Amino acid sequence: MAPVFDEDFRKQLRQLFEWRRDVRRFRCEPLPPGLVNDLIGIACLSPSVGLSQPWRFVLVDDPERRARVRANFSASNAAALAGYAGERAARYARLKLDGLDCAPHQLAVFADRAATAGHGLGRVTMPETIEFSVVAAVTALMLAARAHGVGVGWVSIIDPAALAADIDVPKHWRLIAYLCIGYPAVEDTVPMLQRAEWEIRREPKTFILCR
Amino acid sequence: MAPVFDEDFRKQLRQLFEWRRDVRRFRCEPLPPGLVNDLIGIACLSPSVGLSQPWRFVLVDDPERRARVRANFSASNAAALAGYAGERAARYARLKLDGLDCAPHQLAVFADRAATAGHGLGRVTMPETIEFSVVAAVTALMLAARAHGVGVGWVSIIDPAALAADIDVPKHWRLIAYLCIGYPAVEDTVPMLQRAEWEIRREPKTFILCR
Repeated sequence: MAPVFDEDFRKQLRQLFEWRRDVRRFRCEPLPPGLVNDLIGIACLSPSVGLSQPWRFVLVDDPERRARVRANFSASNAAALAGYAGERAARYARLKLDGLDCAPHQLAVFADRAATAGHGLGRVTMPETIEFSVVAAVTALMLAARAHGVGVGWVSIIDPAALAADIDVPKHWRLIAYLCIGYPAVEDTVPMLQRAEWEIRREPKTFILCR
Repeated sequence: MAPVFDEDFRKQLRQLFEWRRDVRRFRCEPLPPGLVNDLIGIACLSPSVGLSQPWRFVLVDDPERRARVRANFSASNAAALAGYAGERAARYARLKLDGLDCAPHQLAVFADRAATAGHGLGRVTMPETIEFSVVAAVTALMLAARAHGVGVGWVSIIDPAALAADIDVPKHWRLIAYLCIGYPAVEDTVPMLQRAEWEIRREPKTFILCR
């Protein structure tokens, strides 16, 4: 009864992992109606600690709220730039690190540590698994989006407390990701930060120990 | 040049999300040689904040170390059980929450907040994105495994500090997941905790707000 995935599927799946990029440059047209909700539906198939389903999705459409989010990013990014000096600062200043100018859809994703679902199972020694469950859901959403040719940009250069206030969510929700969603304007398998000579990808074997 | 994924692929991808389960009951035979490393290779294609690649994978093979991990789980699980009362405690006691008895492969995954790769980019306002990057990698590994018919069980009922000491990793590494890996003994699309009447899955729309 369980599906058997074949070599052809696995090859395409590997392409999906390779081509999934954090997108900063979007085309402006919206996704087909219903697609963002379908992607959230797939995210909700993710594992969660104790089946706590602590993910909370907030579609941010209001132009005034979006303007506040953009101001939040600009201030946070200016502060981050101030932490670099010399050539590294010049390189940082040239990077485009958000797609808030053009992405047709914006989705804030939060974790609710007060989630009663799951009855606390699995959270005693590692309560941060609540946040981890939401990250897993965001990862699934990004992959499912790419299978539709849709790009997702995860903005982390943002003050999470100010954002939560600006979009008016319960105070105990914790921001996991602010996502820009739309069709990418450019496509590449090489991470943007590698193309910009900010950092390079390392070989997987350099991250493996045996014990 | 970028691949176009078709409806047939998306249908299979959805099945992958539906059938990916947190596995607790494993068959004992090992995976084909090289497959665990291939799965780690796919995990390393994940996004990471600033291209920091903060994931650290530790293959735990030594029987003595494995015995200590199992003792860690047993103690943590007994403490968790003590937090429940009545019928809920009885239900908890009946759950099988780890696959440490039989899983042929065990992989501890850590986040290194001291990772110099990425030069701190994206981590000023949300330094926890280092841990989130590792969770994304673990999620990719779980999905890639399922495409090979391989199951993964994420054990979070464990004392992370004791585990890090028992398997002798740098003190500043933070445990993200202790993974049991092998072929599942049973397959189902319904989460084990739902089958055990511990919790039920909610409709995605219950998790969506608009702002």
